[in-house]
Amino acid sequence: MFRVWAPLAERVDVKIGDALWPLAQGDGGWWEAEVAEAAPGTDYGFVLNGDEGMVLPDPRSAWQPYGVHGLSRVLDQAAFQWTDAEWHAPELKDAVIYELHVGTFTEEGTFAAAEKRLEYLKTLGVTHVELMPVAAFPGERGWGYDGVDMFAPQESYGGPDALKHLIDAAHAHGMAVLLDVVYNHLGPSGNYLSRFGPYFTGSHHTPWGDAVNFEEAGSDEVRRFFIDNAKMWLRDYHFDGLRLDAVHAYLDRSAVHFMEQMTAEVAELERETGRSYVLIAESDLNDPRVVTERVRGGYGMDAQWSDDFHHSLVALLTGDRGGYYADFGRMADVAKALRTAFVYDGKYSGYRDRVHGRPVEGLPLWRFLGFAQNHDQVGNRATGDRLHMRTSLGRVKIAAALVLMAPFVPLIFQGEEWAASSPFLYFTDHEEDLGRLVSEGRKKEFAAFGWRPEEIPDPQQKGTFLRSRLKWAEIAEPEHAGVLGWYRELIALRQTHRDDLVTGDVEVEFDEQARWLTLRRGRFVVALNAGPEAVKLAVARNAKMVLKSCEDIVLAEDGLTLIPDSVAVVEGSF
Amino acid sequence: MFRVWAPLAERVDVKIGDALWPLAQGDGGWWEAEVAEAAPGTDYGFVLNGDEGMVLPDPRSAWQPYGVHGLSRVLDQAAFQWTDAEWHAPELKDAVIYELHVGTFTEEGTFAAAEKRLEYLKTLGVTHVELMPVAAFPGERGWGYDGVDMFAPQESYGGPDALKHLIDAAHAHGMAVLLDVVYNHLGPSGNYLSRFGPYFTGSHHTPWGDAVNFEEAGSDEVRRFFIDNAKMWLRDYHFDGLRLDAVHAYLDRSAVHFMEQMTAEVAELERETGRSYVLIAESDLNDPRVVTERVRGGYGMDAQWSDDFHHSLVALLTGDRGGYYADFGRMADVAKALRTAFVYDGKYSGYRDRVHGRPVEGLPLWRFLGFAQNHDQVGNRATGDRLHMRTSLGRVKIAAALVLMAPFVPLIFQGEEWAASSPFLYFTDHEEDLGRLVSEGRKKEFAAFGWRPEEIPDPQQKGTFLRSRLKWAEIAEPEHAGVLGWYRELIALRQTHRDDLVTGDVEVEFDEQARWLTLRRGRFVVALNAGPEAVKLAVARNAKMVLKSCEDIVLAEDGLTLIPDSVAVVEGSF
Repeated sequence: MFRVWAPLAERVDVKIGDALWPLAQGDGGWWEAEVAEAAPGTDYGFVLNGDEGMVLPDPRSAWQPYGVHGLSRVLDQAAFQWTDAEWHAPELKDAVIYELHVGTFTEEGTFAAAEKRLEYLKTLGVTHVELMPVAAFPGERGWGYDGVDMFAPQESYGGPDALKHLIDAAHAHGMAVLLDVVYNHLGPSGNYLSRFGPYFTGSHHTPWGDAVNFEEAGSDEVRRFFIDNAKMWLRDYHFDGLRLDAVHAYLDRSAVHFMEQMTAEVAELERETGRSYVLIAESDLNDPRVVTERVRGGYGMDAQWSDDFHHSLVALLTGDRGGYYADFGRMADVAKALRTAFVYDGKYSGYRDRVHGRPVEGLPLWRFLGFAQNHDQVGNRATGDRLHMRTSLGRVKIAAALVLMAPFVPLIFQGEEWAASSPFLYFTDHEEDLGRLVSEGRKKEFAAFGWRPEEIPDPQQKGTFLRSRLKWAEIAEPEHAGVLGWYRELIALRQTHRDDLVTGDVEVEFDEQARWLTLRRGRFVVALNAGPEAVKLAVARNAKMVLKSCEDIVLAEDGLTLIPDSVAVVEGSF
Repeated sequence: MFRVWAPLAERVDVKIGDALWPLAQGDGGWWEAEVAEAAPGTDYGFVLNGDEGMVLPDPRSAWQPYGVHGLSRVLDQAAFQWTDAEWHAPELKDAVIYELHVGTFTEEGTFAAAEKRLEYLKTLGVTHVELMPVAAFPGERGWGYDGVDMFAPQESYGGPDALKHLIDAAHAHGMAVLLDVVYNHLGPSGNYLSRFGPYFTGSHHTPWGDAVNFEEAGSDEVRRFFIDNAKMWLRDYHFDGLRLDAVHAYLDRSAVHFMEQMTAEVAELERETGRSYVLIAESDLNDPRVVTERVRGGYGMDAQWSDDFHHSLVALLTGDRGGYYADFGRMADVAKALRTAFVYDGKYSGYRDRVHGRPVEGLPLWRFLGFAQNHDQVGNRATGDRLHMRTSLGRVKIAAALVLMAPFVPLIFQGEEWAASSPFLYFTDHEEDLGRLVSEGRKKEFAAFGWRPEEIPDPQQKGTFLRSRLKWAEIAEPEHAGVLGWYRELIALRQTHRDDLVTGDVEVEFDEQARWLTLRRGRFVVALNAGPEAVKLAVARNAKMVLKSCEDIVLAEDGLTLIPDSVAVVEGSF
C-alpha cells in the first residue's frame, strides 16, 4: 500500500520502473493505492500532477538506497528477526550516556562496525548509546543534522537492517540506544517536502531558514509526520529513546505544544508496546517547563541537556571567555549549576542581552544531562579541538570527575574517555554549489573570530571527515590509557553507589579566589583544585581516599592536600 | 528629569525651544538629564546622534498635544486631584462590561462628553466601562489599534487630565473602567521606536509586520516598556484593569512569558496601591493556560474573551457561514460553548485547517467574557452592520438573553443595548499616502468576499466616522426603547441573582432539529426557540414566568410555548 499526504496535488502517481500507478484521493489530503506489483525491495517514486520529469522520493520513505535524491525502496519493517523480546532498558536516572557519530566512531563508519565496539562500551560502564542523527542526509558523510529523509536510515551507514542489527546487539549487551532526531528544520539539499504540503512557514525564521509549520494551516499532518517518525524509531527500530535537537527552534503557540503532544503520544506507545522510552530535549530555553510533567503544566520531556553546567565548567577550566562563555567563568557559576542546573534562572545574560531562564523547582536534577564535551561543543569550534587539546590533563580529569559525580545524567562524547587525538571537525558532502557555499560560509563564520581562511578545515574535503575518525589503536598508549582508566574508575564508582551519586544530596563549597571546590554526593566528596597554588582542605578523621587524579594528592589527618589541577574523591565528610 | 532608553545611540539630546541639552549615558542603554528649565507644560523632543533635522517624540511621552509626529509635553502625573480615595472596584465575576469607543460614543467624541453618559450606563446596570484604545494614534479619528504613543492619551479625545476626570467620575458612579491596550504591534505611522532601540524583530511576522521583540537581545527593556505602560494606566490613571489586544500575536518563547511577567508585576502593583486590577486577554489560542493561575503553570490572566461562544451564537442566529463561522452553526456548538467555553478544545477546525484548542478544566467560566457583539465583530464587517441589521428583533433578544444568562462575564458593545441605528464602520485619519493604501486595502480585502469597491465605506472619509456615531435621540423611539428595556431587565436579573446567574450551575438541553435550547442557571431557565415552528417545552408545575421576549409566549400547566424567534426566562425546573 502506497500512501502519501499531498493536500495541494491535483493528481499523484507512484512510478515503478517505467509504469505509473495513480493514487486515489482520500480524506485530509491523503492519497493511496494498493499496487500488487510492489513488494519489499521494490524501488519507487512519486509523481505529482503528472510531472514525470520530477520523480520524488517518498516523504516517509523507509529506505533510500540511492541517496536523498533517488528512488525510495519498499521496506518490510516487520521482517527483521529481533532477539530482544526480554529487553528492559535501564532507567534514565541511572544512565551513563555515550554519544557517538556512526561515520567516525569506527574505521568503516558503519552500523555494523559500531556493533563491534559495543563490548568496549559495555565494559566502560555505558548504559545508553546515543547515535547522532542517522536519518538520510545528502552525500556519504555528514553530522546528520542536514537530514531530509526522516524515516530512512543513512545508506552509507548500512541502511535499515544494519541499524536494527546494531540496536538488537546493544540490547543483547544490556545497553539502551538513543537516537538524535532533528524536527526543527530539514537540510538544504534533498528536501522535497514543500512540494507535497505546507511543511514550512514563512511566518517565523530560524537559523536554518523558514520554520517548520507546527501551528498554522495543515500543521496537524506536519506534527503527525514528525511524531510518527519518532514512534517509528521507537517501535520499528527498538530505540529506547530520542534526543530532540534544538527544541527552542520549534515555533508553536498551539494550546497543546508539539513537545507535549510528542511526550503524550510516546507515553501511549509505551502502553502499547510494554517498553519504556525516554525523550531528551536539547533546549536553550532554560525553561523547566520542558521537563515538567504534563499534569503540572509542563511538556513532559524526561530530561534535557544542561548547557549551563557545561559552560560554567569549561569556562573555568579553559579560561575561554568568547561567545557564550562570556557569561561564565566563576567558581560560583559551577557551584550554582551543580545545585540548581540553571545558572541563568531569571538572571541577566550579557551574551544574550536579556534576562534568561527560570528557576528549577521541584524537579530532580537527573532530569538534566551533564557533560564536559559533546559533538557541538567540540565540533562547532573552528578546529574541532577536544577539551584535552585546550587544557591540562589534570583539568581534563577534573572535568570528568565533576561530570561523573554530578547530580546530572552524565554524557560522554566518543573518544573523550581516552582523550582521543582526533579532532571532531565539521564535515559535509554536499553537491558542488551548495558544497562551495558551506565551505565559504564556514571560513567566513570563523573569520569574525580572527581565524584566517587557511586555518579552517574545509568541511567538504574528505580528509576533514577522515581526520575526525577515532584512532582506536591509541587507546593502548600510556597517556590515553591513563585517561581511560580515570573514566572507567569514575563510571564504576557511579554505577556502584547510585544512592550516593545518582540520587544523593548535593552540597557544594568553594573558594572563588583560591579556586577550589568540593561537591558532596551522599557519603562521597569530590574535591578539586583549579587554582595556581596547592590547597589543604580539612577533612573528617575517618575520611578515606577513593580516587585521585595524580599521585601527589595527599590525604592525612590534618587534611586533603591538592596540588594545582588535581581532583580527588574521598569517602567521608569535610 | 528626562530619561530615555536608546541603547544604539552615540549621543542623545533633549530639545526645548531652540536649545539642546545633552543627556548623560547611564547603565543599560539609558540616558538621562535634569534640565532646570523644564517643568510641567514644557514641550520637548529628543535628538539622536546630533541629527537636529529629526526631533523625535519621547517613546514614553505622557502627552502629545500636537499629535503623534509632534513634540512631547512634560506632564505632572501627580497633579490631578483625585476624589476616589475610597474606591473599590466590583469583582470581575460580577461584572457587566460595556465596551465603548470614545470618538463615536458621543456627539463630541471626547472623554468629557463620555462622562456625561456615565449616569445612563450606571442605570443600565453596567459595572465596568471598557474604553477602546486611547493611546495616541495618527490623526483625529480612529479605532485606536494604530496607537504609537503608548503612554499618551489621544489629544483629540481631550488628553491626559480629561481622561483622569472621566475615570474619577466613573468611580464616583460606582463603575470601574478598563482600557484596551495594544502590545502586539504599533501603528504604521508615527512609530519612531526603532530609532531608539530593538523594539521589533524580523524573526517573526505578524499580520501587522515585524513582531514586537519579546524574546531576543534587548527584549528586557521592550518588555519593561509595555509593562511599565500597563502599570502607568493602572497607577496614574486609576484604571481598574486592562484588556490586552490579541495576545496570540505575542511571540515569546522565554521561560517567563510576557503575559506571566505582566500578571506578576500587576499583582505586585496591587500590593503597593491596595487596589485590585483585572487583566483580560483577547486570545485566539483557545488555551486555558492564559487564564490559569501562575502557580499552576499558567499566565495568570483574570479572564479572556470567548470567541467560540460568540461565533456559535451568531452563526446560529444569522445563518452566516462565511470565514470563521464555517466552523459553527449547530445548536450543539452553542451548548458546548455554554458548558465549557471552548467549542474547539482539541478538535479539528476546518477554517483553521488544524486541530485547535484544549479543554478548559478546573476553571470557573467567569474567566471568560461572553458577547454577541463587540467592536471587531461589528466593525470588521464590510459595512459595520450590527446584529439587529442582520437578523430579526426576536433573535437579537435571544442573543441578549443568552449573553446575560450565560456563565460568562457579559460584554455589551456601545449602542447594542438599544439596537442602535448607526453602524460601527472602520475609520482612520492617516496622512495622504498611507491613507490611500488603507482605503484601497479595505476595498481589496472585501473584494475577495464579492463586495464591489463602491459598497465599501472609505475609512479615510470623515463621513465614515460620523456615520458610526451613536444617535442618542433614537433611544426614545419605541423600537429602540423596547430593546433597551429587554437589556435592562436581563441585566437587572443578573445583578439581583448572582448566586444563580453568575456562579450557579450550567445545564443545557437542546434539539438540533427543532432548534430550541434551554439553559438552566441555578433556579432560572432561559428557553429559546430559533427554529421555524413553535415549540412546547414541558416545565415543572410551579414554574413562573420571569421575562419573555414577546407577548405570544405562553406558560401553562402543560408547558412553555415559544413561537419562532422568541426567548423566555422562567423560574423553576423543566
